[in-house]
Amino acid sequence: METRYLDDLFSGQHFKTPGITLTEAEIIDFAWRYDPQPFHLDVNAAAASPYGGLIASGFQSLALCFRLFIQTGILAESSLGSPGIDELRWLAPVRPGDTLHTEIEVLEVRPSKSKPDRGIARLRYHAVNQRHEVVLSLIINHLLRCKPAD
Amino acid sequence: METRYLDDLFSGQHFKTPGITLTEAEIIDFAWRYDPQPFHLDVNAAAASPYGGLIASGFQSLALCFRLFIQTGILAESSLGSPGIDELRWLAPVRPGDTLHTEIEVLEVRPSKSKPDRGIARLRYHAVNQRHEVVLSLIINHLLRCKPAD
Repeated sequence: METRYLDDLFSGQHFKTPGITLTEAEIIDFAWRYDPQPFHLDVNAAAASPYGGLIASGFQSLALCFRLFIQTGILAESSLGSPGIDELRWLAPVRPGDTLHTEIEVLEVRPSKSKPDRGIARLRYHAVNQRHEVVLSLIINHLLRCKPAD
Repeated sequence: METRYLDDLFSGQHFKTPGITLTEAEIIDFAWRYDPQPFHLDVNAAAASPYGGLIASGFQSLALCFRLFIQTGILAESSLGSPGIDELRWLAPVRPGDTLHTEIEVLEVRPSKSKPDRGIARLRYHAVNQRHEVVLSLIINHLLRCKPAD
């Protein structure tokens, strides 16, 4: 998709990404490095946990949700990173075989007062599974470039 | 360290983890999977970016900050996952060779009204580098078990 700069975005604008199917191997690999809790690592311990089976680390579903949007290329020329995230909520477990995609809504676009070539866009991300359940919701404050003068 | 249950935690309690040194290889490997932006992937593009060199994905510093705490074992018997994160702020770049540790403060402990065997602990996490700079701050709402009856 075409790159959008800060001034191409407007409140209420929507984007939707392709999906990814999360395998048991990916779930265990990520958890082993970054979130080694039994319900992310060990199918037997996970079956005995309140989740009733292996679930993905929330940090993995978060990173995947972001990666799906980044790889659309929409922010490829404009992204300058992020000062932070608000209101992150893990709403439903993500299990092996689940397929997630990301739906993005532009909440607010705020040009910088001190640096006229950039600003903040607040984007709401929803990671959605194959049953149309929102499994993760968050707001990322993106630092984005304005469109370069020709 | 010894496992703490919900009822072992109190507002104002502090924990501090060992550190980890983040290598260029780990930064590029994580970014390639989860956050493929030029300033996380390509040393030359990163040098030309506002960051002046390669920086770690904020999702990686987040996951590492959490992993450092999880591997202390403090929540090994009590953790039941998390409903979400509040007020995540990336405050300074993390570069190859930086060494991070995590400092945790218990902000609030809230037993569940409906399920007396568990509750929510709100913990503030600070990831701190070798220059004592806080590079990342966030609040994780942890769902934790209460101490089992003997």
